[in-house]
Amino acid sequence: MVNELENLLSNNIKGMKRSAIREILKLTQRPEIISFAGGLPDPTLFPTEELAEVSSEVLKTEGALALQYGTTEGDALLRKLLVERYQKQGINIEEKNLIITTASQQGLDLTAKVFINPGDTIICGLPSYLGALSAFLSYGANLEGIELDQYGMRSDLLEEKVVELANKGIHPKFIYTIPDFQNPTGITMPEWRRLEIIAVAEKYNLIILEDCPYRDVRFEGAAQKTMLELDKSQRIIHLGTFSKVFVPGFRIGWAIASEEILDKIVVAKQATDLCTPAFVQRISARFIEKGLFDKNLSVIINAYKAKQQHFIKCLKEYMPSEVSWINPEGGLFIFLTLPEFIDTTELFQTAIEEKVAYVPGSTFYYNGEGRNTMRLNFSFMSLEKNEEGIKRLATAIKKEIAAKTK
Amino acid sequence: MVNELENLLSNNIKGMKRSAIREILKLTQRPEIISFAGGLPDPTLFPTEELAEVSSEVLKTEGALALQYGTTEGDALLRKLLVERYQKQGINIEEKNLIITTASQQGLDLTAKVFINPGDTIICGLPSYLGALSAFLSYGANLEGIELDQYGMRSDLLEEKVVELANKGIHPKFIYTIPDFQNPTGITMPEWRRLEIIAVAEKYNLIILEDCPYRDVRFEGAAQKTMLELDKSQRIIHLGTFSKVFVPGFRIGWAIASEEILDKIVVAKQATDLCTPAFVQRISARFIEKGLFDKNLSVIINAYKAKQQHFIKCLKEYMPSEVSWINPEGGLFIFLTLPEFIDTTELFQTAIEEKVAYVPGSTFYYNGEGRNTMRLNFSFMSLEKNEEGIKRLATAIKKEIAAKTK
Repeated sequence: MVNELENLLSNNIKGMKRSAIREILKLTQRPEIISFAGGLPDPTLFPTEELAEVSSEVLKTEGALALQYGTTEGDALLRKLLVERYQKQGINIEEKNLIITTASQQGLDLTAKVFINPGDTIICGLPSYLGALSAFLSYGANLEGIELDQYGMRSDLLEEKVVELANKGIHPKFIYTIPDFQNPTGITMPEWRRLEIIAVAEKYNLIILEDCPYRDVRFEGAAQKTMLELDKSQRIIHLGTFSKVFVPGFRIGWAIASEEILDKIVVAKQATDLCTPAFVQRISARFIEKGLFDKNLSVIINAYKAKQQHFIKCLKEYMPSEVSWINPEGGLFIFLTLPEFIDTTELFQTAIEEKVAYVPGSTFYYNGEGRNTMRLNFSFMSLEKNEEGIKRLATAIKKEIAAKTK
Repeated sequence: MVNELENLLSNNIKGMKRSAIREILKLTQRPEIISFAGGLPDPTLFPTEELAEVSSEVLKTEGALALQYGTTEGDALLRKLLVERYQKQGINIEEKNLIITTASQQGLDLTAKVFINPGDTIICGLPSYLGALSAFLSYGANLEGIELDQYGMRSDLLEEKVVELANKGIHPKFIYTIPDFQNPTGITMPEWRRLEIIAVAEKYNLIILEDCPYRDVRFEGAAQKTMLELDKSQRIIHLGTFSKVFVPGFRIGWAIASEEILDKIVVAKQATDLCTPAFVQRISARFIEKGLFDKNLSVIINAYKAKQQHFIKCLKEYMPSEVSWINPEGGLFIFLTLPEFIDTTELFQTAIEEKVAYVPGSTFYYNGEGRNTMRLNFSFMSLEKNEEGIKRLATAIKKEIAAKTK
């Protein structure tokens, strides 16, 4: 045995545990449990037939390229097609601004690697996507959370926090934000709020990490401009991914940034995994080129829209009146707020007894707040399962409220 | 523009540049240049037809699994099949000891992430695979190199170095080694040398990172036991990959370690890319299951054996007598030693004029030694191209020798 292994570990990894959500997901793999805990797309919507055709074609006509090492920056055709999609939205980027990543989790990891020294401060929404916080913590970051209102991260509190930190001689390395259908709350920032956040960043010379995994999964309301588009001073690192709008099993994402920042991300990726698999990049490129991506995306949006509407209908029908939520205009999640006296971590046991699972909201608050909240996923299961799960969850919540108020 | 971007970068990334080899590879993409610089497999050997069939089948029969998020540990079937391959060699591991990584570069990155604090010492061979050194440097490691002899890393110098470091209060985090067909030298450690290195590690409580990308590409001589098998005290982290023995375009590797260490690698991977693409993992698993992997591997070994024999024949025929090399028993590289007064970095320009390229050996020495050496790859090109390239390289070397000795 290696003696005193704990002493050999890096300081950053010592304190880290397996992701709470992924451990919950393991618990909930018992078939009798209906789980709202994951963030999985609906696998019945995967375009398996079309992908079988495109995969065969790629292997037969360009296998030597698709099975070989690729460049760190990514497949040239895929980068070109992605850049064109942004250009069509009026966003002025070129290939030199975009790198393919091993899904957007790697975009988070590489940004952290490029900027974070142990003890550095990162500003994030309160609550925020846990995987991003883990990536930052794994480089020894200190997190400073900014409360959200119904328009997302509060720009007034952001400026206050930046000033407070500056007074202590601390310059945050970047602001982490998910402007569209935020994970876990589902909140979307309107354009004016995005501009306010950018103005603060400009005033205090801060970088913004804009994470956009759900952006294209919009059911209603007008699309908001990305912060990448609204920014005038090249301070946005923008992350995109195919995981929610195509398939997660390819692990393809991308990062967009100024050439100067992108160069550092390339260097970091070379040391990390050299390159993202060429095979799935080339298949994705051909899939887009044939128009299959957009066709598939509208199928996904329609299906999730129906699921979301039905989910909200069921919540209204079954949940006790003490439970509230904000209707998201897109994405995969609905965030419930329960009475203050309910702790959803405690409630979890009762829920499992009722054969239903969720992610306790406090998981997304690095400071342990949000104890009366929970995140529910509506994209993965059928309408019937979602309805049955909501019934079970409502029963568990009612029991907990009764127990706490008797 | 972000002001003073340089000041916002992490200390680890500030000093890092794009990989020298990958930049050389870009230079040598001019079609008239014959390049021995890469480390690429021969794409004409990729089993494209068989993979087209297996991919289609996977998508049609288990697409919901193959296109979904996977677990961080990796595809259950692939892990089972890999573990069985090790068990057949008499290596006593179970699934809980193996995690799938995004090729072995990620195994290097995750090991670095788990163990290295800025300023920590890592021991490596002198010379060593550059990508590994970059991974360690990207976490702020200090490197201590141990000279190789014809049996690989010298165990006497290793012990001396460990004692010297201990006297300064320094405990190295791990020893990095490539026991089979080392990159760049092609040297293989005999069993007795492996045992000596393990004995030093045991005596001083050190972890060994055993990197085995080429192990199964053996043309002659008996396979040596892995350090994983020889070790009796669970201090080996063993890395494997499909890149050289199947296809690099899938980016599939794996790390094997004690349960205790593997648990930390899983935590690190969760923060890094969540999981390796499920799609290519499942295709690989089915490819192995059908017996296609072993069939393909023997095709690769035979082809590379023929290339290597022909390459050495040509070296003997064309190179001036001042140039020497060790015949590797496997792998993808031959390492040339030139007269002491030749600097292969200076020679590079002459070589490019002769339309041939290589990697200067000093690239693999973190301390700038090895200036009279170079690494040549023999796996990628045809016999004809290899021969023509060797002729050109011999011309360049003769010119340089003549210029330096006139």
